[in-house]
Amino acid sequence: MKKIIDISWPLTNGMQEYKDRKSVKLEQINTIETKGSRDFLLCMNNHTGTHVDGPSHMLPMGKNLSELGLEKLIGPAVVIDCTSSLEKVTVDVLKGIPLIPEIIVLLQTKNSFRSASEHFDTNFIYLDTVAAEYLVAQKVKAVGIDYLGIERNQPDHQTHKVLLQHDIPIIEGLRLAHVQAGNYMFFCLPLLLENVDSAPARAVLQEV
Amino acid sequence: MKKIIDISWPLTNGMQEYKDRKSVKLEQINTIETKGSRDFLLCMNNHTGTHVDGPSHMLPMGKNLSELGLEKLIGPAVVIDCTSSLEKVTVDVLKGIPLIPEIIVLLQTKNSFRSASEHFDTNFIYLDTVAAEYLVAQKVKAVGIDYLGIERNQPDHQTHKVLLQHDIPIIEGLRLAHVQAGNYMFFCLPLLLENVDSAPARAVLQEV
Repeated sequence: MKKIIDISWPLTNGMQEYKDRKSVKLEQINTIETKGSRDFLLCMNNHTGTHVDGPSHMLPMGKNLSELGLEKLIGPAVVIDCTSSLEKVTVDVLKGIPLIPEIIVLLQTKNSFRSASEHFDTNFIYLDTVAAEYLVAQKVKAVGIDYLGIERNQPDHQTHKVLLQHDIPIIEGLRLAHVQAGNYMFFCLPLLLENVDSAPARAVLQEV
Repeated sequence: MKKIIDISWPLTNGMQEYKDRKSVKLEQINTIETKGSRDFLLCMNNHTGTHVDGPSHMLPMGKNLSELGLEKLIGPAVVIDCTSSLEKVTVDVLKGIPLIPEIIVLLQTKNSFRSASEHFDTNFIYLDTVAAEYLVAQKVKAVGIDYLGIERNQPDHQTHKVLLQHDIPIIEGLRLAHVQAGNYMFFCLPLLLENVDSAPARAVLQEV
């Protein structure tokens, strides 16, 4: 079997979260000694660690993630080296990369090379709205980025909306420091939450 | 792209859980009107819906699920028609099926054809311990079943332990009513919970 590369953000108590909210609680509630088996209670905001934003995250009439179909999150992908971007990923960085229709685009920025254990970094590298429009025009299937958001506090969240209006899911919270830019198969499976905008996920690459 | 078949149990408030515990809470905490985006708080027992048991679920010195490697949960799989089993899946049902080493075995029982919305069914079809030993001898990579447990209240949880002692993860809570028995590619991605026995997951089949 071809090598699997895990690109997910580990979920643990005290982990880095968006704007330093502390939603994650992982608590052992049974032990082998007392109940014969271990189990845990898990609580988290649905936008924690590696997760997928569905259209209804920001669009009043948008679809929930479970309505989109998993085909959007499985298939050929390209990891694009955007580590030259100092503030945001612009269309110039993307234009040199051949993008076949239905490809999944994963942005490897300087975010991946910063610590995942410290405080939320409000100056993370984000995706410019014009670059998002370019990806829509290229008919990409999904877009992923290596931080807990795909834009900072841009007025009216245009980068999100440009993608979500086209039912393009956004995968946030990837970890790509250990990945070479290039072509892969991508598999991202979010939990099947019903009637919810977005869901936590596990994401992997497979070498091609 | 070859067809993806979702075999996951939907997660929602009031869903059926093991022994009718009610751990799931999905609560919307922000709205587009007030915050510009929707998000939810999710709480659940880590053995809810479709989930993967790692060795430390029942073995004091067993590995946590995240230590097993995702290769165990990705690859060629066979869905075995066990719908003739009235109480438990025995070795007789499995013996007729050719099992290549490293295959993932998914047991389709009458459980799949019962309602997933009613109370927990203590009389679910389970996997006999001798049948589990047979699967170990065949060197299967993982074993899945279409209910919230793989054994009932068997003394000392021998079916679990036989599999987990060999680092064979157990996928519980699959839904297989809509699946034809036969060969598939299987992809199961559990959340990356650190230092935890088991994790909720999304599981799919892909036609071959």
